[in-house]
Amino acid sequence: MADTLNAETTLQSPSRLSAFRAVRQRSMLLAEGLSAEDLAAQSMADASPGKWHLAHTSWFFEKFILREQSDYQCFNPVFDELFNSYYLSVGQPYARPQRGLITRPSLQEVLDYRAYVDEYMVRGLERGVIDDGVMTVGLHHEMQHQELFLTDLLHLFSHNPLKPAVKKSDSHRGPADAAALQWQTFDEQIIPIGAGSEGFSYDCERPNHRHLLSAFALATRPINNAEWLEFMSDGGYTTPLLWLSDGWACLQKTGWRAPAYWQQADNEWQQFGLDGLQTLDPKAPVTHISYYEAQAFAHWAGKRLPREQELEFIAQQTARSGNFLEQERWRPCASSGTGMQQIYGDVWEWTQSAFLPYPGFVAEQGALGEYNGKFMSRQFVLKGGSCVTPIEQMRASYRNFFYPHQRWQFTGLRLASDV
Amino acid sequence: MADTLNAETTLQSPSRLSAFRAVRQRSMLLAEGLSAEDLAAQSMADASPGKWHLAHTSWFFEKFILREQSDYQCFNPVFDELFNSYYLSVGQPYARPQRGLITRPSLQEVLDYRAYVDEYMVRGLERGVIDDGVMTVGLHHEMQHQELFLTDLLHLFSHNPLKPAVKKSDSHRGPADAAALQWQTFDEQIIPIGAGSEGFSYDCERPNHRHLLSAFALATRPINNAEWLEFMSDGGYTTPLLWLSDGWACLQKTGWRAPAYWQQADNEWQQFGLDGLQTLDPKAPVTHISYYEAQAFAHWAGKRLPREQELEFIAQQTARSGNFLEQERWRPCASSGTGMQQIYGDVWEWTQSAFLPYPGFVAEQGALGEYNGKFMSRQFVLKGGSCVTPIEQMRASYRNFFYPHQRWQFTGLRLASDV
Amino acid sequence: MADTLNAETTLQSPSRLSAFRAVRQRSMLLAEGLSAEDLAAQSMADASPGKWHLAHTSWFFEKFILREQSDYQCFNPVFDELFNSYYLSVGQPYARPQRGLITRPSLQEVLDYRAYVDEYMVRGLERGVIDDGVMTVGLHHEMQHQELFLTDLLHLFSHNPLKPAVKKSDSHRGPADAAALQWQTFDEQIIPIGAGSEGFSYDCERPNHRHLLSAFALATRPINNAEWLEFMSDGGYTTPLLWLSDGWACLQKTGWRAPAYWQQADNEWQQFGLDGLQTLDPKAPVTHISYYEAQAFAHWAGKRLPREQELEFIAQQTARSGNFLEQERWRPCASSGTGMQQIYGDVWEWTQSAFLPYPGFVAEQGALGEYNGKFMSRQFVLKGGSCVTPIEQMRASYRNFFYPHQRWQFTGLRLASDV
Amino acid sequence: MADTLNAETTLQSPSRLSAFRAVRQRSMLLAEGLSAEDLAAQSMADASPGKWHLAHTSWFFEKFILREQSDYQCFNPVFDELFNSYYLSVGQPYARPQRGLITRPSLQEVLDYRAYVDEYMVRGLERGVIDDGVMTVGLHHEMQHQELFLTDLLHLFSHNPLKPAVKKSDSHRGPADAAALQWQTFDEQIIPIGAGSEGFSYDCERPNHRHLLSAFALATRPINNAEWLEFMSDGGYTTPLLWLSDGWACLQKTGWRAPAYWQQADNEWQQFGLDGLQTLDPKAPVTHISYYEAQAFAHWAGKRLPREQELEFIAQQTARSGNFLEQERWRPCASSGTGMQQIYGDVWEWTQSAFLPYPGFVAEQGALGEYNGKFMSRQFVLKGGSCVTPIEQMRASYRNFFYPHQRWQFTGLRLASDV
Repeated sequence: MADTLNAETTLQSPSRLSAFRAVRQRSMLLAEGLSAEDLAAQSMADASPGKWHLAHTSWFFEKFILREQSDYQCFNPVFDELFNSYYLSVGQPYARPQRGLITRPSLQEVLDYRAYVDEYMVRGLERGVIDDGVMTVGLHHEMQHQELFLTDLLHLFSHNPLKPAVKKSDSHRGPADAAALQWQTFDEQIIPIGAGSEGFSYDCERPNHRHLLSAFALATRPINNAEWLEFMSDGGYTTPLLWLSDGWACLQKTGWRAPAYWQQADNEWQQFGLDGLQTLDPKAPVTHISYYEAQAFAHWAGKRLPREQELEFIAQQTARSGNFLEQERWRPCASSGTGMQQIYGDVWEWTQSAFLPYPGFVAEQGALGEYNGKFMSRQFVLKGGSCVTPIEQMRASYRNFFYPHQRWQFTGLRLASDV
Repeated sequence: MADTLNAETTLQSPSRLSAFRAVRQRSMLLAEGLSAEDLAAQSMADASPGKWHLAHTSWFFEKFILREQSDYQCFNPVFDELFNSYYLSVGQPYARPQRGLITRPSLQEVLDYRAYVDEYMVRGLERGVIDDGVMTVGLHHEMQHQELFLTDLLHLFSHNPLKPAVKKSDSHRGPADAAALQWQTFDEQIIPIGAGSEGFSYDCERPNHRHLLSAFALATRPINNAEWLEFMSDGGYTTPLLWLSDGWACLQKTGWRAPAYWQQADNEWQQFGLDGLQTLDPKAPVTHISYYEAQAFAHWAGKRLPREQELEFIAQQTARSGNFLEQERWRPCASSGTGMQQIYGDVWEWTQSAFLPYPGFVAEQGALGEYNGKFMSRQFVLKGGSCVTPIEQMRASYRNFFYPHQRWQFTGLRLASDV
Repeated sequence: MADTLNAETTLQSPSRLSAFRAVRQRSMLLAEGLSAEDLAAQSMADASPGKWHLAHTSWFFEKFILREQSDYQCFNPVFDELFNSYYLSVGQPYARPQRGLITRPSLQEVLDYRAYVDEYMVRGLERGVIDDGVMTVGLHHEMQHQELFLTDLLHLFSHNPLKPAVKKSDSHRGPADAAALQWQTFDEQIIPIGAGSEGFSYDCERPNHRHLLSAFALATRPINNAEWLEFMSDGGYTTPLLWLSDGWACLQKTGWRAPAYWQQADNEWQQFGLDGLQTLDPKAPVTHISYYEAQAFAHWAGKRLPREQELEFIAQQTARSGNFLEQERWRPCASSGTGMQQIYGDVWEWTQSAFLPYPGFVAEQGALGEYNGKFMSRQFVLKGGSCVTPIEQMRASYRNFFYPHQRWQFTGLRLASDV
Repeated sequence: MADTLNAETTLQSPSRLSAFRAVRQRSMLLAEGLSAEDLAAQSMADASPGKWHLAHTSWFFEKFILREQSDYQCFNPVFDELFNSYYLSVGQPYARPQRGLITRPSLQEVLDYRAYVDEYMVRGLERGVIDDGVMTVGLHHEMQHQELFLTDLLHLFSHNPLKPAVKKSDSHRGPADAAALQWQTFDEQIIPIGAGSEGFSYDCERPNHRHLLSAFALATRPINNAEWLEFMSDGGYTTPLLWLSDGWACLQKTGWRAPAYWQQADNEWQQFGLDGLQTLDPKAPVTHISYYEAQAFAHWAGKRLPREQELEFIAQQTARSGNFLEQERWRPCASSGTGMQQIYGDVWEWTQSAFLPYPGFVAEQGALGEYNGKFMSRQFVLKGGSCVTPIEQMRASYRNFFYPHQRWQFTGLRLASDV
C-alpha cells in the first residue's frame, strides 16, 4: 500500500476490506515522525494524546464489533477504562483530563493493540461476520479522530518554545490572483435539509426534512488574514459593543488579542501551524478563531454569520473538493477562482446555528446513541471541513459542533446577511 | 390609586400618565413588608438586591429619557455607575457580583430617587415631551424587573434558616378535578412567527417572518410535581444516560437531587416559595428546574421539549389569561379545564430552541441595542410567563431566555413529540 | 453612662457588673450612625456584617454562660446556627461566606437579643451566679469583635464609589517633629515569654516560659508612608527577587501595586479610612499591608521583620499606652517622641514568627479550646494592637494572628536586624 | 563503575572527579527500566517529569558553572527557559504546570545534554577550573532531585489503573520483633542548633546558634500503619475537633479518608508504592501523610508533633545510618532495635516548626540565594530523610520543608510531648 493519505485508497475502495485497511493505515501514516513522547502528552482537557487517539479508535472496533463475537480474546480488559471516551453505557471511562498520564501501555503496546484488533477485523471481514453498519461508523469515527490527532498535536506543540513542526510542507502561499470577496443572493424557498437514507450519515444529520429558508446573501469566500488584521487594527479586540456578552467575558478572562497561534515578531505577524512557525499569509483564510471572535467580526463588518441551512444549501450544489487532509498542505490557503469558493475544505465555518436536534431526530440505538445527541446544548454548528479533514468524512449534511470559546480546530468564518 | 397589582390599572390605562403611574406604583407595592435589609442583600451574582431593582428601573427612565432633556438636574451622578446594569455604551457599570455591597444610598434615598424621577417624568408627560417609544420600553423593562425582584428575593430568603415568606397567600391548592395530561397533534404548515408592527415588542421578537413548522404533538398541560416525583423515584437524578453531557456535568458539580427549593421533611416533600415553606402540591406544575433537568425528564418520558415556534403557534390561538402576578397566588397552581391549558402563566416553559436572532433581525439603535442581542449564545428560549409575570408583559411572541443551568426563575416544562 | 469609648468605663470598673455593662455598651456606641443596611452587608468571606458581630458576641454569653443555667429561656434556637462562628463542638455554624444573607433577624431583633442577653447577664451578675472566668473571656472576645466590626466596615465601605466615612474625625496629622527612625540594640539573653497566671490571657499566650533571645537590633518606630513610597518608586512591587515565592504568586494574582485602600488622584496618593478618603500622611505609619509586602519591604531595606519574642521583650518594658480605639483617631498617626515609639497602638506589627504553640501549651478545656489552637498553621503573629484596638485588650503577651495575604486589618511593620 | 546506588561511590570518593561521576551516574541508574513516555509525563504542578529532573540537574551545572567559562559552548539556549526551575534572577522559567508538555527535546536529547555537560565538567575538574563550592551545591542539588525523581514517578504511576511498579524489590516486611513505642525524656538545656562551618550545608541551616530547649519527651520510633488504622477506626478522618481549621477545610476539599496511595481491597488495605501494589505492612512506619493528618493524629493521641530543634538535638547524638536510598528497599520498613530508632531514614518526620530563618540567617549570594530563603512562609520543617533519600544528603542540621497539605513525599510522624 502506498504511503499516502490519498482518498482513493480509503472508503471508495472496491471492497470493505481494503476500505478498512486504508483508513486504519492512514492513522499510522499521520503518526510518522512523531516520538512516543510526542504521542503521549496532553496539553488541555479538550485535547487527547496521539497515542490515545490510536488506541481509542481501535477500542471502538473492539468494543462495538469484536467483543460481540464469541471467539474474540480481549487484548487487555483495563483498556476498556483507559480508552473509552464517553460511552457511559458501556463503563466508566478514565478521567479525560488525565489522559496524558497514561505512560503505560507504551506506544509500542498500543501499536500491538492496533495490529491485534486489525487482525481480528480482517479475519472477520474475510469471513463476512463483521456488522457493516457499525464498521462504517467506526471508519468515520476514526477519520474524525485523524483530524483531532493533528489539531491536538498542534495545540501541544504550540506550548513548546522550540516551535517544532508536526509536518513538513512546501510553501503553499496563496495564488497571486487570490479571489476577491463578492456576494451572491438567494431567494426565500423551501429546501431539503439533512441526510437521506443513502450513504453514511450520523444520527444528528437526520431525518431529511423540509426547511423554509429566508432570502439571504452569502460571501463568495471566507474572511482572510488581511481582513482580520483590519478588524484588529480597528479595535476589534478592545470594543465590547462588538461582542456577545459571553464573548466579552471570555475575552477578558483569556486575554485574547489575536487568533490562536498568532505571535508578533519584529514588524510582522507569524502563525504557528502544523508546518511550524510561518509568516502570516494575508490572503489565506483566517483560522483558529472562536465563535465569539467570528461573531464580533461579523458585527463589526455589519453582517452576520450564516445559518447552518444556508451553508448546507450551497454545499448541496457544490462538488466536494478542496483543500482537505489528502492535499497534505496542513494549513488553509487562499483560493483563486470565481464564484462560490472554498465551501469545502480549508476552514470549518462557524454558523450562528446552535447544535440542536432536527424535527424528527431519533438518536442511534445503544451506546452509539451517545455519539451526538448528548452534546446538544451550548455548542454551535460548523460546516464544510478543513485542511486536515479527510475528504470522505465530508458531505453537505455534515454537522460539526464545538463550544463557542474553543479555537484549537481549524475554524474560520464566512459572512452572510439578510436581504 | 388602589393598592392592588391588578392589570386594569397599568398599561391599559386611558392615558400614558396613568399607565406610567400604575407600573411605577406596582414596584412599590411589591416592596411592601420588606425591610431595608431584605432589599439590600444579594444572594448570587445572577440575582440583584430589591433596592437595586427599584433604583435601576428609575435610572432607566432617567438615563434614556430625562438626561436627554436640557432642564433635568441629575439626582446623583454616581448612580450612573451604581445602577447601570450592562449598558457599556453609556458607561462602566458597578461590578454585578457586588451589588449587595451598596449599603449607601439607603433604601430611603432610593425611594427619594424614584420619587424624583417620577416627578420629572410626570411633569414631562403632562407637557408631552416624553419620548413615548422609550417610555414604553421603560415600562416593559420595569415589569421584567418586577418579576426578577420577586425571584431574587425568593432565592435570598431560601438561604435563611428562618424560612421567611416574601408574601402571604391563601392556600391555592389544585382543584379536585385537576386536568389530565392529554396530547394534541398539529400538521406541518407555514406559520408567521414573531412580532408585527402593532403593539410593543422587543427587537429580538422581530421581524415577523414565515416559518415552516413540522408536524408535532403537544401535551395539554405542563408536567406536575407528582410526575416529577415519578422521574425522581425512577432514578432520574442518578442515570447519566438521560442527561445531556453538559447537564450531567452540572449535576455532578451542584449535587442536584430535586428541583430548587425542595426539601424533604418527615415523610413528605416541602417546597419553599414566596409564601414560605409549604407541603408540595402533587398537581401543581413542577417549577424551579433547569433546562438540563427538563431535558432529562423529557428524555426519560420518551418525548422532547417543544420548539419555541410550536409554543408560539399555540399561544397565537390562545387568549392571554392565566395565573399571572396580578392573581397574587405567588406560586404555580394546577388547572382543571380541558383542552390546551396553562399556555400562559404559572410557569415559564423551557423550549429546546436556543436564543438566536430571527432571519432579518436588526438590533435596536443606540444603547437599547444592548438589551437582547448580546445575549444570543448558550441560552435557551422560554415561553408563556409565570405566576409572577405581570400579564401585560406577556404575548405570544415574547421570548424569555436563560442559561440551561439556571433555575431560580419559575421555570417548568411541557412535553412535545414529533409525529 | 457617658457616651464615650474611654477605657476607664470598662474592665477597670470597680465591679464586674459595670465592666460588663461598659464593654457591651461600647459595641453599641460603635454602631451609632450606621444604618441597618450598613450593618447587614458582608464584603468578603473573611469579614462579617456589623449586625452579625453584635449578635455573635451576645450569643457567646448566651451559649457559654446563660444556657448552662436552668432558668434561662433561649431567645431563638435558630440563632445557635446563625451566630455560631466556628465552634464545631457546639453545633454546625451557618456558612461563613453567607453571613451577608441574614436579613432576618433584623437589626432591631438583634438589638432586642442583645438587651435580652444583657438582662439575664445583669441579673445573674447581681445574684453572683455568673462564671467569672468565662465572662471575662466573653468580654475580651467582644473587644476583639469591636476591632473587627470596624475593619470589616472599612472593607465594606471601600467598595462603595460614594466613599462613605464610618466615623467622623478631626484631622490628626502627624506632629511637625515626627520621630526619626533610629536603632536600638539588645544582647543575647534568656527572657520570660508568655502570660503568667495573673490577669487575663488566652491559652495561646501560655505558659510563661524561658526563651533564649539572640542579640538583635530594633527600629524605634514603624515604617511610615513616605518610606513606603520610596519602596514603591524603587520597584518594590515589580521586583520578584524581593518577595517570598508565595508572596510574589499572591501579588501576581491580586495585582497589588500599593497598600490596600490607597488610590492615586491627580498628583497625590489618597488613603481611604474609617474617616473617609484623605490625602496620604507621609509621616503616619504605613498600614493595610500584608505579611508578604512587609517582608518584601524589609528585604529591600536590607533588614528583616522582628520575631514575636523580640517585640514582646520590648513591650514588657513599655507602658501600655498609645493610639488605641479610645483615642477615637480612627487611623494610625505619626509620633513625635524619642526612644522606642509606638510599641503599643497605631498598627499591628507583623512578626516573622509563625503562630505556633508555646512549649507546654495546653488548649482551653471544652468549646473554648477551639478559640486559638486550631488556627496554628500558616498564620503569622502580630503584636502591639492598633488604632482600633480597645486598650484593655492589649498586653505584652498578646498574640494576634493573620494569614500572610490578609491586609484588611490595621497592619504595619517595624524593622529589625541581627547584630 | 558498579551499577549500584551505594554511597561509597559518591561523595566519599577520594577525588572530586569520582564524586561528580558517582552522583551523576546514580541519576542514570534510577532512570533504568523507565520509558521515554514514563519520563515525560507530569501528574501535578508540584511534580516534574523524570526527564525534566535529568535535564534540570544538568542545567544547574551548566548555568552556574560552565556558562561562567569563556570556552564553553552552550548546548541549546532554549534550555535556559525549559530547565530553569525558579531562579528568576537568571531568566523567566517555563511555566511549571506545563513541564509535561516538553516532548521535545526528547529523552535521548536530554541524555545527550547530560553527557555534554558531564564532558565539560570532567574536563574542567581535570584542569582544576571548577568552582568547588558551587559544584558541591550542584551535587547536593542533584541528590535532592534523585529523591523527587522517585516520588514524582510514584505519584504519576498511582494514576495508572495498571498499577505499574517503578522498581522491583524483595519483600521487606518488618522483622518479627518490631520495636515497641517507648518514650525518652530530656531536660531543659541550651543546645547548639544549625550547621557549622565544616562540611556542606544549605544557607537555611546556618548559622549555628544557641537555642534554649524546653524539657520534652520523644517517642522511640515513628507511628506505624497499625497505629494509624486505630486512628482511622476511631473516627480520625471524621472528627473535626481533632484537626487544625485549615486541615479540616483541606480534608473536606480533598475527601481524604486514609494516607495517600492506600486503597481498600477485599478485607485488607493495600498500599501503592515504588514496588507496586502491596498489602499494607502494619509494623512499617505510616507514610504519605500531610502535616494536617500528622497533627490530627498527635492530637488524637494526646501528644504533639516534635519541634525541629528536638529532632535535631537527638540526631546530633545519633549515627547517620538507616533505610536510605542506597538500601534499595523503596519503602519504609519496621525496625527491631531498642532505644531511639529510625531517627534517620525511612520517613521524613513532620515537625511543628514552621520553615523560618534562623537568628543571623544570611541568604546565599547571587542566584543561589533563591534556593531556600524565598520559601519561608506557610511551610513546615521535616527532619531525618526517607527511604529514597541519598544518605549523603542527610545530616542532623538538614531542614526539609513542604506545605502542610502535601503528601506525595515519604512523610511520616513521631510523637513528642511536653514534660
